[in-house]
Amino acid sequence: MDVYGGLLSKLIEELSRLPGIGGKSAQRLAFYIINMPEEKVEKLSQVMLDARKNIKYCRDCYTLSDKEVCPICASPSRDHKTIMVVESPRDMAAYEKTAQFKGVYHVLHGVINPALGIGVADIKLKELIQRIQREDTEELIIATNSSVEGEATAMYISKLVKPSGIKTTRIATGVPVGGDLECIDEVTLLRALEGRITI
Amino acid sequence: MDVYGGLLSKLIEELSRLPGIGGKSAQRLAFYIINMPEEKVEKLSQVMLDARKNIKYCRDCYTLSDKEVCPICASPSRDHKTIMVVESPRDMAAYEKTAQFKGVYHVLHGVINPALGIGVADIKLKELIQRIQREDTEELIIATNSSVEGEATAMYISKLVKPSGIKTTRIATGVPVGGDLECIDEVTLLRALEGRITI
Repeated sequence: MDVYGGLLSKLIEELSRLPGIGGKSAQRLAFYIINMPEEKVEKLSQVMLDARKNIKYCRDCYTLSDKEVCPICASPSRDHKTIMVVESPRDMAAYEKTAQFKGVYHVLHGVINPALGIGVADIKLKELIQRIQREDTEELIIATNSSVEGEATAMYISKLVKPSGIKTTRIATGVPVGGDLECIDEVTLLRALEGRITI
Repeated sequence: MDVYGGLLSKLIEELSRLPGIGGKSAQRLAFYIINMPEEKVEKLSQVMLDARKNIKYCRDCYTLSDKEVCPICASPSRDHKTIMVVESPRDMAAYEKTAQFKGVYHVLHGVINPALGIGVADIKLKELIQRIQREDTEELIIATNSSVEGEATAMYISKLVKPSGIKTTRIATGVPVGGDLECIDEVTLLRALEGRITI
């Protein structure tokens, strides 16, 4: 028997389709929503629709933004000659939180992953190449994730960029700050050893 | 700097106000939503608003329903003389999943909790008393949670109902099925011992 009756069950069903929201969370959210003041539910709906309708790729770096050029690309105080290449807008947000990187970004929206059928044409790589040909780029910092696919994509990009003479770097792999050596996998330990610096 | 620009940040902010959704989940949901087909976002918004506007309390048992009388109270195949008293519609749904209870429910929407300022008048207790006076109730099964407040509320209800001569029972407290004795708290172990049955 449908315990809740049509509308509530439908709401729970729709919510449980969202990523990371299982049956129990969807129930909890649904009950929360039907107890919210009506104008708050209207606001949430409106924000969702507005975001869906108006957010597009930044013309330059392909992050998501509701402006044609995102705030970072539009900022004159950023160093537009240093481009950090990241997989997703979330990775970009993670680096932005450090508030130390003064360059700009380029968002690939994925990495090359033959197993999932994601090829060179499926990520914003052509756009990156066109951008560095058009702009006066000095350094390309490749900050794809340290996964097999992230590493392979980094290698691919560095080979592609080499002829242009632009300096290409890769963020360091090693032991995370506060990390306990005995809990860290062997590959990371080896990478940390290989990448050791003089102090 | 607002990395994402206005609309996306606003969406993340609104989503992170929902219960159980932290900053990271809100980000993930927001990115998912802006990548959903537009008509799906419209559907989700509509379902939320419909549910918020049309769901009210069932006239008889006070569960949430979009009908005046919920499907369970409206069903002639249920035993309307046995009422299970629960704290929330979710607890009711949990018992409904067992598909073994054939009676009907009464949803209190909370328990008496002086620490949180929730008194007798704040839960649907008056409505329960009126209901058993009006209806031909034979048994009241009190299935509030086994918390201090749940137990106190159960005691309070049983005292209130006693004069009417209606049989009042309480669901059993004990070791959960599959539970490992060594992992179970002492109070539960004692309760299980006190409540032992002849086999």
